[in-house]
Amino acid sequence: MKEFELIKHFFTEQAVKRKDVLLGIGDDCAVVSCTENQDIVVTTDTLVAGVHFPLGTTAKAIGHKAVAVNLSDIAAMGAKPSWISLAITLPEVNDDWLTEFCSGAFELCEYYNVQLIGGDTTQGPLSITITAQGLTPEGKYLSRSGAKSGDWLYVTGELGDAALALQHYKEPVLTSESIIKQVQERLDYPKPRVLAGQVLREYASATIDISDGLLADLGHLCQASNVGANVVLDAIPLSAAMNESQLFDDAINFALNGGDDYELLFTVSEDNKVGMETALSQMGAKITCIGQMNASQTISTTLNNKPVPISNDGFQHFSLNKR
Amino acid sequence: MKEFELIKHFFTEQAVKRKDVLLGIGDDCAVVSCTENQDIVVTTDTLVAGVHFPLGTTAKAIGHKAVAVNLSDIAAMGAKPSWISLAITLPEVNDDWLTEFCSGAFELCEYYNVQLIGGDTTQGPLSITITAQGLTPEGKYLSRSGAKSGDWLYVTGELGDAALALQHYKEPVLTSESIIKQVQERLDYPKPRVLAGQVLREYASATIDISDGLLADLGHLCQASNVGANVVLDAIPLSAAMNESQLFDDAINFALNGGDDYELLFTVSEDNKVGMETALSQMGAKITCIGQMNASQTISTTLNNKPVPISNDGFQHFSLNKR
Repeated sequence: MKEFELIKHFFTEQAVKRKDVLLGIGDDCAVVSCTENQDIVVTTDTLVAGVHFPLGTTAKAIGHKAVAVNLSDIAAMGAKPSWISLAITLPEVNDDWLTEFCSGAFELCEYYNVQLIGGDTTQGPLSITITAQGLTPEGKYLSRSGAKSGDWLYVTGELGDAALALQHYKEPVLTSESIIKQVQERLDYPKPRVLAGQVLREYASATIDISDGLLADLGHLCQASNVGANVVLDAIPLSAAMNESQLFDDAINFALNGGDDYELLFTVSEDNKVGMETALSQMGAKITCIGQMNASQTISTTLNNKPVPISNDGFQHFSLNKR
Repeated sequence: MKEFELIKHFFTEQAVKRKDVLLGIGDDCAVVSCTENQDIVVTTDTLVAGVHFPLGTTAKAIGHKAVAVNLSDIAAMGAKPSWISLAITLPEVNDDWLTEFCSGAFELCEYYNVQLIGGDTTQGPLSITITAQGLTPEGKYLSRSGAKSGDWLYVTGELGDAALALQHYKEPVLTSESIIKQVQERLDYPKPRVLAGQVLREYASATIDISDGLLADLGHLCQASNVGANVVLDAIPLSAAMNESQLFDDAINFALNGGDDYELLFTVSEDNKVGMETALSQMGAKITCIGQMNASQTISTTLNNKPVPISNDGFQHFSLNKR
């Protein structure tokens, strides 16, 4: 295990040095200073090899994704990410692998000025746990629980590509190299919507990031907010790669039930709709209104303005029911 | 993985509800408020089954230990622990196991008023990663780097019992059931020296917790402080169980090179010596002066007032050299 000491060198190579980090890696704890009038948001996510990413995933993609999924949670709170702690369990120390892993992780950290303040390296089956923290103005954080009946339902980006890539990995369904590359990129290098989240802090009534799939995460938001929602299936944003390679039913199924999108799903009141759309379009973020919240406490879907049923025993059967 | 949702119930059962936790488990992030004039200390430790605890360790002991090793790092900074995030990877969901694990983890959290603010549960080989945070008055944290030549070297508690228990687990060496029970307790239920750490904030020049073994961790402290130390072997505190069951040489070897003690190793200036001893004895903490820091930048040891060599190629050979 002595060689695991070497890993510390990889971790201390990170270029970001924040002023609020009083003591970084190398002591029993890191020390950060906290500013008055700020709240701290904290999230923890573990990625296990073969469960959260296919076994053949590159080290760089694993590094990127481990950071991205945590920053996506920070984004959903409307916070600015600040510090991460990284616990990595590795079967063996491999310099090339670690160099690639760190390049993937640090690239994202550097872009968002996030400092790695702690690390633990242990020997065992490959898994990575990151605890990420972020800052928001006092009392100004977003949550899942503020949606009201009548609010509009929006999503950033396009949905389903990561699920399509995962499906292709399990059982090849795609033939075009260009399309495979595009959806693989979405699975391996999700983009946490950090800046959009901070803009939404002024406008959104509720926010969640889509990690389990649109329907599942909308379910979490509805439950926390004690409301229901109708999703307009025709409105769900799909990528060109998805539209080109998949029948509409399959595409919608990937978008509804796939996971790993790491887009933000959020609700906005009628009063804030125009302001939010203007602010997000000014920063170049793609957003799409995909439905509206209601008082039903259930989730319904419509297609061509007509109700479409969702099976009760899991959303997996949606596509079958429709056919 | 649906059943893993059940685990959330275990996590939300924790009784501690701190005022500074604005949003606990259940959203994309937890939210905590930060107070002016305080710094936050952050540490992350992973326990892997079969590496950091023997495979037969009880779930309750694993829960206790996962929290304890992190609180021990917080203690070494002189901070008051406040929040933990728990990432647990399990081969399967087992209600009995989780109940026991949580009872071990939460008992310690409740004692120190530490709130579980986040959790991630994933499927895979058993491992636990905890990120613990704590609070100190602004600029008042302890570190490894403040020891000066001439400072006195102290340790809390007694050393080596956990290493003896681990040795007995690997290859039975103990015969007395009572002694086995005592040292096993030290391995499975280490006591983080949280209160002693907070008292030391006023007196110590440098602190570290002993997780890798006295000599290794003293080495870390010396390196960070740019000093050396002499350790008086006759002074090292050993338990009655250790003294009864082991020859002196073996006992000292366990104390020097074993790990998992989670006692605090700290240095105090001549000026602060009496004040520190009074304050710690008033709170009932056992402390022992085991040596003194010097300018040599190496670690030496003495026995009966005579120098005793330590082998260069690892402390493992200390015992052999002496014989």
